[in-house]
Amino acid sequence: MTEPHQVFMEAAIALSLESVRTHKGGPYGAVVVKDNTIIGRGMNLVTLTNDPTAHAEMLAIREACDRLQSWQLTGCELYTSCEPCPMCMAAIYWARLERVYYANTKETAAAYGFGSQAIYRQLGLPLAERQLSMTQLLPTEARVAFEEWANQPDKQPY
Amino acid sequence: MTEPHQVFMEAAIALSLESVRTHKGGPYGAVVVKDNTIIGRGMNLVTLTNDPTAHAEMLAIREACDRLQSWQLTGCELYTSCEPCPMCMAAIYWARLERVYYANTKETAAAYGFGSQAIYRQLGLPLAERQLSMTQLLPTEARVAFEEWANQPDKQPY
Repeated sequence: MTEPHQVFMEAAIALSLESVRTHKGGPYGAVVVKDNTIIGRGMNLVTLTNDPTAHAEMLAIREACDRLQSWQLTGCELYTSCEPCPMCMAAIYWARLERVYYANTKETAAAYGFGSQAIYRQLGLPLAERQLSMTQLLPTEARVAFEEWANQPDKQPY
Repeated sequence: MTEPHQVFMEAAIALSLESVRTHKGGPYGAVVVKDNTIIGRGMNLVTLTNDPTAHAEMLAIREACDRLQSWQLTGCELYTSCEPCPMCMAAIYWARLERVYYANTKETAAAYGFGSQAIYRQLGLPLAERQLSMTQLLPTEARVAFEEWANQPDKQPY
């Protein structure tokens, strides 16, 4: 293990400990790194801010994007104290991050009562078999927005 | 189909059209409904705000949570112009929404060049087989935060 990797993961772990010790949220921390510099930091703030999306990775990604004034983090790496949940993992793909370093696994998180592993299982099921009821309505009406998007000459695909 | 369902889905579709027509982002809209009232609205703002997490569903959930001053949306329903991507779907589980109504499918979104279906496939793969490289570091050091969390008498599980 090279030294910088260890330093950045220690920064993510320090944020996870800070979140617990200051009663801000769950035991999670993350940093986004570009060119050997931390450009985004996050710790879990779900319960403090009443925001179920305020996971450490999400906040670190949003801070890094804000700093770069870009919705893409190409060339950046994420260090997170725990394997990301499906929300954060999908955000990592949407943001085009280059590489992820994680410490705890989702199995460890599950052993402490956290639900990311259960949500991974739900997302792997067909819609009709999920715990959450999902019903389709008005698909023809909704498709118009995709058509208008497709016909826009100056659209910004992402 | 009962009338209120149609009205709420039409509101979500209207937001998806507004996002396209005002060049704010992709063709997506969503509303959160509680007791027959819209308490959160969102349209895709990814490219406008340089925030890869600014999907319609995420913004609608965050607005609803802010209004209720709670990170839980028990008893609420989400209407979205398109089947949620894994990020939004996991956020829906974290927020404890009761039910989801969607219009377009992720297959339709893929036909117009959007990546949620591809990300669902990635999340279904073991870590070693994913496009994105994921490496574990310092698991022993990181577990301390979970231990401290477990031993906190006044912790707020979520």
